[in-house]
Amino acid sequence: MARKRMRNRPSPHGPNPDQVAKITQPKWTLPPYEIASTEQLQLLHDKSMQILEEGGIAFYDEESVQILEQHHVKIVDQIAYFDRAQVMEYLAKAPSQFVWSGRNPEHNVVLGGDHVVFAPVVGPPFIRDLDRGRRDGTLQDLQNLIKLSQTIPYMHSLGAENVVPSDVPIEYRHLETMYALLTYGDKPVMGVYHTGPIAADTLALAKIMYGEETLRHNHVLHCVVNVSSPRRLDDRMLSMLIQFARHNQIVDVTPFILSGAMGPVSILGTVAQLNAEALAGIVFAQMANPGTPCIYGSFQAVLDLQSGAPVFGAPESQLALYLSAQLARMYNLPFRAAGAYASSKIIDAQGAYESVMAMFPSMLVRPNFILHAAGWLEGGLTVGYEKFVLDCELLGMYHRYLQNVSWEEDEWALDMIINEVPPGGHHLGSSHTMRHYRTAFYRAGLFDYDSAEAWEASGSIDSIQRANQKYKQLLRQYEKPDLDPGTDEALRDFIERRKQEL
Amino acid sequence: MARKRMRNRPSPHGPNPDQVAKITQPKWTLPPYEIASTEQLQLLHDKSMQILEEGGIAFYDEESVQILEQHHVKIVDQIAYFDRAQVMEYLAKAPSQFVWSGRNPEHNVVLGGDHVVFAPVVGPPFIRDLDRGRRDGTLQDLQNLIKLSQTIPYMHSLGAENVVPSDVPIEYRHLETMYALLTYGDKPVMGVYHTGPIAADTLALAKIMYGEETLRHNHVLHCVVNVSSPRRLDDRMLSMLIQFARHNQIVDVTPFILSGAMGPVSILGTVAQLNAEALAGIVFAQMANPGTPCIYGSFQAVLDLQSGAPVFGAPESQLALYLSAQLARMYNLPFRAAGAYASSKIIDAQGAYESVMAMFPSMLVRPNFILHAAGWLEGGLTVGYEKFVLDCELLGMYHRYLQNVSWEEDEWALDMIINEVPPGGHHLGSSHTMRHYRTAFYRAGLFDYDSAEAWEASGSIDSIQRANQKYKQLLRQYEKPDLDPGTDEALRDFIERRKQEL
Repeated sequence: MARKRMRNRPSPHGPNPDQVAKITQPKWTLPPYEIASTEQLQLLHDKSMQILEEGGIAFYDEESVQILEQHHVKIVDQIAYFDRAQVMEYLAKAPSQFVWSGRNPEHNVVLGGDHVVFAPVVGPPFIRDLDRGRRDGTLQDLQNLIKLSQTIPYMHSLGAENVVPSDVPIEYRHLETMYALLTYGDKPVMGVYHTGPIAADTLALAKIMYGEETLRHNHVLHCVVNVSSPRRLDDRMLSMLIQFARHNQIVDVTPFILSGAMGPVSILGTVAQLNAEALAGIVFAQMANPGTPCIYGSFQAVLDLQSGAPVFGAPESQLALYLSAQLARMYNLPFRAAGAYASSKIIDAQGAYESVMAMFPSMLVRPNFILHAAGWLEGGLTVGYEKFVLDCELLGMYHRYLQNVSWEEDEWALDMIINEVPPGGHHLGSSHTMRHYRTAFYRAGLFDYDSAEAWEASGSIDSIQRANQKYKQLLRQYEKPDLDPGTDEALRDFIERRKQEL
Repeated sequence: MARKRMRNRPSPHGPNPDQVAKITQPKWTLPPYEIASTEQLQLLHDKSMQILEEGGIAFYDEESVQILEQHHVKIVDQIAYFDRAQVMEYLAKAPSQFVWSGRNPEHNVVLGGDHVVFAPVVGPPFIRDLDRGRRDGTLQDLQNLIKLSQTIPYMHSLGAENVVPSDVPIEYRHLETMYALLTYGDKPVMGVYHTGPIAADTLALAKIMYGEETLRHNHVLHCVVNVSSPRRLDDRMLSMLIQFARHNQIVDVTPFILSGAMGPVSILGTVAQLNAEALAGIVFAQMANPGTPCIYGSFQAVLDLQSGAPVFGAPESQLALYLSAQLARMYNLPFRAAGAYASSKIIDAQGAYESVMAMFPSMLVRPNFILHAAGWLEGGLTVGYEKFVLDCELLGMYHRYLQNVSWEEDEWALDMIINEVPPGGHHLGSSHTMRHYRTAFYRAGLFDYDSAEAWEASGSIDSIQRANQKYKQLLRQYEKPDLDPGTDEALRDFIERRKQEL
């Protein structure tokens, strides 16, 4: 190992993670699944360092190059060559866990350490449901998806633009998106942040919502910096990263590598490159502002050589994820693992197989953040209403799974097994069953367990039809959280003023 | 640990597992996922021993009770009270791995050690496909399912009655089932074995097919002994077990526990009871014939309290499976893990989510045998043609997954990452990609990776429709393996004679 696992580093500012006790946020107690030996992990680290030292990472942004030069990084033609001592020095400044605050403090969550956070799909231009098929997303759709995340207890965050609201003019789309995120729910929000200027507007709205002082000492926004693999960060990403880092907001550095296109066709080469790219982004964030809360993200799929499409839930990706998670754990950085990704256009058998094949491995590696935990279809081009609520059944199951086995004495039920229930008897009404049955098992309400006869008699309703009814029922149940009218007015004033300017 | 992990015990008879090198049979090289500490595992073992010593296991069969008494097991009212020293003494006689032979030796597989065997669904009375819905199974359906297992390379066995052929009179149904298994394919076969007399006919047919000497020295049949939990083995199961054990054929002891009904609602209690029951069956097989090749099976689901139905793919079952696998590994016994179980009536999203949630955990525990690896629907009441071929795509992916990460030097592709592909470039035509792309990724042929536009233009064909076409195409591709006409005639003669008698 290049270095010992770093000690727990508390966030320099804001609330103390140890004091954010969330009954709904799963806490990891299972052992992490690790497939690389210490020597193999060291080798992966060394090869990544070689990529950083000899290959370098392009920073196509003037201000970023200046920051790198101020921190004595060697730059040739906008390519930064980090040496490994530098990398380790700056990684040590990143907190290992921190609090992500929502508008309602009861929804605050811990990012990092042993804590797991689920967030919904982010980014698709299209939306699909049974009633209307696939179409451009609208502001109404975005609001609906925020309402679903706000209502479903297994979702811990509202994410960012869960669908692109195409009916809002592009010049001020980010403002209406951010307004929807801030007002339709009160769970933690990521924000809108495609470029530096957009990030600035997002930060301005957050300042109005939370107040300048609160914003300074709390992490209330969370941007994803996608490295444009291979080995490139562009000015849009970098200008946004700098703004978030300087405002002490969360920077999630996630290379997107499609093995065979943006990286080699091999697992090892892909993971080494992904590691180099993720670390370069995190080191840069620490140079922009030491102590910036960062997340190490892994987003990897393989190339389908017949169609050129990304393949999600592939076995190669499962193995790559295990390795990436081990690296992030070695660096003691919060780790973003894979969500319920699917290549399928619809949530049929393929879509469901892919989603679990993509996400179950994440549940094995002590993940800290799962973006796109529900709703994702068609390689991220589409969000499905039905897929969203079906995936949330998985999230409910994972909440139970992450509770681990209870080793309480009463769990043995030995007296019942040995003395109370005879051979061939049953445990249905036994004393132990009566004590525990209400809480013993997670029940997936969207899944049908009726007999085939009863199921056919009631119309042979399949999962997607049930999910169609369910998402509409959840929208009816939704309650809008209160918002101080003065704050709302101030948000609207800012937005209307910016609309005039843009 | 009650005892050190037992040394590798070769099978006393027949082919040497080390010499059965199957390119298609996956070999386990990943580390097993283990969630219990050594102390916790010891506790699980101790509690199971307490169940055997104080609760005992009912053996409702006269001959079995005699066998137990001959081996000094304490019997009161047909309940056997094993002491832990006895259990350990007899477990040590069970081989840790052995060869399961097919009619074609090229299809022989190793059961145990680091080897994984997939077998199809066994037992459903009903069959379903898109064209005809759900209906009683027929002999034609059974033949079709055998043809699919024979044709699909990711299936290593033909299993047993993949569907009950209801159009064959019940008196001699087992004979026609066994004939179909022996003649429509040449991969390893389990057999038909619901009772002692049926097992005797199955053994007689195997004797005709393989010859008496071969049968004596090879494991060509494989029965599943389902303990009737809690703590009961009935005369049907026991008489069949004794026949298989005395003929040196494989005995797979698998308690079926629906937590909340046949076992407690807790994970720990369920696993302790399941362990006691599985060990009792294996110990008894060793008493019936020392060295009998045995499998330690875990079949556990939870009870849906609203419908009373078994729930498959539940998070509680995933955790229970990890514990059972650790116990089997401690005893150095071949372990049967969970297959692609689903409660769903059809292979919609629910069916697919459940199947992966049930089977992916098996891929983490160094499994040796996966029965019901394809086709299972409706809690095992129905086999689906489309489900069968869709699940086989998962088996293909698991074959790739089980290959683990390659740590070959060329896998790093460092020269390509550092020197050949510039920042923002692509790896599509690079030298490393050209060398490896043909074999780099598993491709799921049944999954659609086209764009949404192309997919819609070609009719928006969903997974189940594609699978419907696929299974028919596989049936057309099927080639019947050669069979010596004299042997065929002898099999038919035996069957016709038995039909007269029955």
